[in-house]
Amino acid sequence: MNCIFEANFDKTQIMKRLTFLFLIAIISTVLIGQDKLFTIEEAVIGQWRELYPKTIWNINWKGESNTLTFKDQATIYGQSVNSSDSSVILNLDELNAALVKTNLDSIKHMPNITWANNEEFDFQYNNTWVYYSLNKNKVLNFISIPENAENINVFVEKVMIAYTIKNNLFVIGTDNKAIQVSNDEDENIVNGTSVSRNEFGIDGGIFWSPKGNYLAFYRKDESKVKDYPLVDITAREAELANIKYPMAGMSSEHVSLGVFNLKTQSTTFIEKEDTISEKYLTNITWAPNEESIYIQVLNRDQNHMKLNSYDLSGKLIKTLFEEKNDKYVEPQHKLIFLPSNEDQFIYQTRNDGFNHAYIYKTSGELVKQLTKGEWEIIDILNVDSKYMYYTSTAESPIELHFYKVALKSGKIEKLTTEKGTHNITLNKNGKYFIDKYSNTETPNVIQLVSTKGDIVRSILKATNPLSEYNMPKMEIGTIKAADGVTDLYYRLIKPIDFDSTKKYPAIIYVYGGPHAQLINDQWLGGARMWNYYMAQKGYVMLTVDNRGSANRGLEFENVIHRQCGVNEMKDQMEGVKLLEGLGFVAMDKIGVSGWSYGGFMTISLMINYPETFKVGTAGGPVIDWKYYEIMYGERYMDTPEQNPEGYQYTSLLPRARDLKGKLLIIQGAIDNTVVWQHSQSFVRECIKNRVPVDYFVYPRAEHNVRGYDRIHLMDKISNYYIDYLK
Amino acid sequence: MNCIFEANFDKTQIMKRLTFLFLIAIISTVLIGQDKLFTIEEAVIGQWRELYPKTIWNINWKGESNTLTFKDQATIYGQSVNSSDSSVILNLDELNAALVKTNLDSIKHMPNITWANNEEFDFQYNNTWVYYSLNKNKVLNFISIPENAENINVFVEKVMIAYTIKNNLFVIGTDNKAIQVSNDEDENIVNGTSVSRNEFGIDGGIFWSPKGNYLAFYRKDESKVKDYPLVDITAREAELANIKYPMAGMSSEHVSLGVFNLKTQSTTFIEKEDTISEKYLTNITWAPNEESIYIQVLNRDQNHMKLNSYDLSGKLIKTLFEEKNDKYVEPQHKLIFLPSNEDQFIYQTRNDGFNHAYIYKTSGELVKQLTKGEWEIIDILNVDSKYMYYTSTAESPIELHFYKVALKSGKIEKLTTEKGTHNITLNKNGKYFIDKYSNTETPNVIQLVSTKGDIVRSILKATNPLSEYNMPKMEIGTIKAADGVTDLYYRLIKPIDFDSTKKYPAIIYVYGGPHAQLINDQWLGGARMWNYYMAQKGYVMLTVDNRGSANRGLEFENVIHRQCGVNEMKDQMEGVKLLEGLGFVAMDKIGVSGWSYGGFMTISLMINYPETFKVGTAGGPVIDWKYYEIMYGERYMDTPEQNPEGYQYTSLLPRARDLKGKLLIIQGAIDNTVVWQHSQSFVRECIKNRVPVDYFVYPRAEHNVRGYDRIHLMDKISNYYIDYLK
Repeated sequence: MNCIFEANFDKTQIMKRLTFLFLIAIISTVLIGQDKLFTIEEAVIGQWRELYPKTIWNINWKGESNTLTFKDQATIYGQSVNSSDSSVILNLDELNAALVKTNLDSIKHMPNITWANNEEFDFQYNNTWVYYSLNKNKVLNFISIPENAENINVFVEKVMIAYTIKNNLFVIGTDNKAIQVSNDEDENIVNGTSVSRNEFGIDGGIFWSPKGNYLAFYRKDESKVKDYPLVDITAREAELANIKYPMAGMSSEHVSLGVFNLKTQSTTFIEKEDTISEKYLTNITWAPNEESIYIQVLNRDQNHMKLNSYDLSGKLIKTLFEEKNDKYVEPQHKLIFLPSNEDQFIYQTRNDGFNHAYIYKTSGELVKQLTKGEWEIIDILNVDSKYMYYTSTAESPIELHFYKVALKSGKIEKLTTEKGTHNITLNKNGKYFIDKYSNTETPNVIQLVSTKGDIVRSILKATNPLSEYNMPKMEIGTIKAADGVTDLYYRLIKPIDFDSTKKYPAIIYVYGGPHAQLINDQWLGGARMWNYYMAQKGYVMLTVDNRGSANRGLEFENVIHRQCGVNEMKDQMEGVKLLEGLGFVAMDKIGVSGWSYGGFMTISLMINYPETFKVGTAGGPVIDWKYYEIMYGERYMDTPEQNPEGYQYTSLLPRARDLKGKLLIIQGAIDNTVVWQHSQSFVRECIKNRVPVDYFVYPRAEHNVRGYDRIHLMDKISNYYIDYLK
Repeated sequence: MNCIFEANFDKTQIMKRLTFLFLIAIISTVLIGQDKLFTIEEAVIGQWRELYPKTIWNINWKGESNTLTFKDQATIYGQSVNSSDSSVILNLDELNAALVKTNLDSIKHMPNITWANNEEFDFQYNNTWVYYSLNKNKVLNFISIPENAENINVFVEKVMIAYTIKNNLFVIGTDNKAIQVSNDEDENIVNGTSVSRNEFGIDGGIFWSPKGNYLAFYRKDESKVKDYPLVDITAREAELANIKYPMAGMSSEHVSLGVFNLKTQSTTFIEKEDTISEKYLTNITWAPNEESIYIQVLNRDQNHMKLNSYDLSGKLIKTLFEEKNDKYVEPQHKLIFLPSNEDQFIYQTRNDGFNHAYIYKTSGELVKQLTKGEWEIIDILNVDSKYMYYTSTAESPIELHFYKVALKSGKIEKLTTEKGTHNITLNKNGKYFIDKYSNTETPNVIQLVSTKGDIVRSILKATNPLSEYNMPKMEIGTIKAADGVTDLYYRLIKPIDFDSTKKYPAIIYVYGGPHAQLINDQWLGGARMWNYYMAQKGYVMLTVDNRGSANRGLEFENVIHRQCGVNEMKDQMEGVKLLEGLGFVAMDKIGVSGWSYGGFMTISLMINYPETFKVGTAGGPVIDWKYYEIMYGERYMDTPEQNPEGYQYTSLLPRARDLKGKLLIIQGAIDNTVVWQHSQSFVRECIKNRVPVDYFVYPRAEHNVRGYDRIHLMDKISNYYIDYLK
């Protein structure tokens, strides 16, 4: 499900979404006791708004300088590493004066900016991209982007923007004259958009060459992919809104890579001729010299990857090396070329069981394994001539720390100290970084740290935004998985006004699928506030990150292969044993709740353990993996033809008759990830077997119910437990 | 909604659907007290199966003879009017021997047969139509109908069958060679099917001429009609299953009438050239001499009807007369030519306020009004040289009796005596009829009666099939409508073990729309058993046939014009006053339930009278008339352009925010009558306004939830009241 699940949020996105801005100044709040309870609005939206710990917005480094900048609604501030004094760098009036001077519309709030260098930044508003000189206080360049443009991708240095309109790719420069890169009339041929349903680390289809002389882009031929009919009910009369949805085992898209030469305005293609193999072209990486392109080419079976290099005529230069695995190979990271030696690059793989970095030569020869251990590199932030800077789980699977490793010696230094989850903004000059972290006790700290590991100073220490609330007690711990060996993390939230002599109903909130981890050492333990809201209502809330979940290595994850849900359920039942051992849980009042893979887990648990689970709420659930898409689905389940018994065994359709408890299924009517066919088919089977089931539909929701609609959703889910699990 | 509503069933259809057959013999049952309660299965299916009063199947007259026939699974029996002794006319073995001799498949159960004359009958099984001689004990003719044939229409005398495959019309005879009548490749042109969504009494698109020399058929051009996207989730990957659905105010279908000459095999068209006016060609009637065709042509506005005659070249001969009305004209009956004078015909209209019969000359001159009064002719069964035989509401709006009126004198004789609802099978010779009736005290009586009004003998008197059950007490009475003048019928069912000192919750079961009447003097008072089931659960069940409902005349009905729901709700609130006056109803515990127009009424009532209605269940509800189809919708509401304030005022979309109580909306996912856009749009508005609402979807249901699925449905509905109205 490509991390489209309920409980995780990318923090950057959250900040972007927030419309309220908070000042740095910590306003002292009058403590009116700790007796407030969350409203459903606070439990759903408040966590990301008024109850979000104080923070600083758009914090960034000013080019390669040692000045960091941040903003509020009207001003960009700067602060040197040498002084805690903030100075105004630019205010909105100045910016607007410059915009108006260039005949551009003025802006109401200071936009998020990105520094191109010490003096110049760019930003986007409405349909205009602006390149601004702080020194000259003027707009250096701007580009008007067509209103219907999508997939907007800016190459700042050359002041060019690539974008798509419908199925074709365009480039526009400061002359504001668009060049049409592709010209496919057949809408089954799509250029410049993401492919492979965003699996394999793919998150876009436009790849500027390092110097901006070429534009590589995905070309996707979906002629063979079946349409899934979605319906737009907002039209005068409802209208069809088809999506291309390739289901497991069915015909898939054919992907090639176009390379557009901006000088000659001609396009060559890589792998275009192969329209049979349905292979995946992943992790497109330009050679620094722009003379070749590296692609991690994966077969449709997803068990054999070749790292290929191609010249710009589209010819294969060589296969540097290959990776195979009986279960699956999942390339997820682009190559990172060493700035000090462009014939070498860093390659990440889980080949030894955990995601680690390796240095390879462009000949394909391994130079060395750079990191090793029973932990995973999560993100490589930069590589300079001496070090690779990265975050990893080396400290703990539920913490995230920042490290540097010396390329030569392999010596690792931990650069963050306080326990918890660190979010790093590294200065390009490699000398300092901004460390934003939280842990279960610390709402939000922002501090300035040198890459030698010295804390220069604290910039922000947020107070507890929930101090007025009667907060349920939360603990994180470990239990053994069903294999008796593996440690699993759990998060337990106890009801308020807890009385250990009472018996409380309990709800297990579950996701369970790969690429997600619900429990982290961060503020609130990684839980959505709704868990605390329900604990305020008197429920014990438990979450267990079962085997299959993220950041624990390959074997921890791939126990799900060809049998999604099976081992995950066994581990969740260890969570039930934990509840039983607590002594204060009413074991005849256990509920379960989840979305997407978690919806699949919820219904699977209710059906397989009806004596345990009495009430469930399942959102956007997978019901039968044959209805799920090829890229994610076949990685874990193979095709229905290759694994008929696995598909049969995990399908909930023949099991609908076994449903005993109260189950509410929730579905977004225009879900393009777990399509509506899943839950409708299950409901149909319930009806056939005269099994009571409840259902709700969010007519304009895709895979998740977002925004204010979410308050309605969570109120409905909450009330379902309040009505039936009491 | 074209009488597609929940509470009425055509008895013939019910009998056809029933798979159990009951013998005439009345088996005495052991009374085990009157303490049994209905199971939900009995309450839903039982009414039409094991709890259906004993009856006789396929009872019919043997041609024009005075012998009636009926059947069980293996035998056709005959009984002369002169004797109560039944004799075997044909048994299954004999029939099968004859079938096998003709190289046809044998049959497991005796089929329903239709007598062509005293000695010959026809029937259909699998895809074969058989014409059988009882005398000769052999198959005289048979025709194999293609498996994908639809709209099968037999002309027995000439042994020909017309049918459609996809959008084209075919004829086949005993040579089993099909003739293609129409040959339209464009699937927007549809031949031989029903048109105008079955309004205006239209129930098919094939019209054999009286002597079988011509075949008239509807030709429908739907090029301008928008598709409504339905989705088939049973495919490997869900697939689009568009229907043509013309919504109020939008472009409609264009209908013409084809006339196929079987001799020359050529087709002429009536009204084909007029592709602009979107008029309705209703009540196609052949002149007895086959030289002309009469069509009641209605304008799209539905307020101006012309009775036109056309010659077979398609030319208009003349407009016999016209009918206009400020609100609407609704032609619903074909002409019936007098056998004694083929220049005269009987025409039915509500022109004087009630549906009555008139004799006209083919010149258009009125001969006389044959019937008159504040009651309605429901069905004309036959016209012979002296009499017109018909059923009417003359006795009471909730009873149905059989009459004959002398064509000459206009003298009316009532031919049925016992109070209640009579279903008549008239002998073609006009001497006798079979009278099948029930009333609130009488489950089912079948008797033989002469058309002089004398009861010859009783054939069946069914005992009470519910004698073992603790039956709630039912009463039918009248209250005044909100206008203070009009009598409305109500049906009240009291809880079992009734205690007048207690306060009971009450549920109003409502339909409320035109063309339907829920209260009849028939067995169970016209109520579905579910009403009694709920009364056994402790609910007072009330139904009121408000103004707008059927069989009460034009003005009673057309108060709904341009303001559907408004007067209907006022009348339903008089029902609430009735409940209040009873003294034993808990007035803070009133629920409401309905389907289709009744779903619209249910939500309208909950939103407009939130202080009264606390819990509602609304199935397949109209939410905004702009989403409803042209033919029915524009009759009552005009177009959205003509009546914007009416559409706005009755729309539930802007009122979703006013919903207060617990409301469960239920929808068939492939509803092609009240399309899904209605309820999804309403749910969307609830979500936007953060109004709690419950929803359930029957993925394979059209406008009604049928068969065994209905048990699931009614269980869900029942539990909603049990959970929330207690």
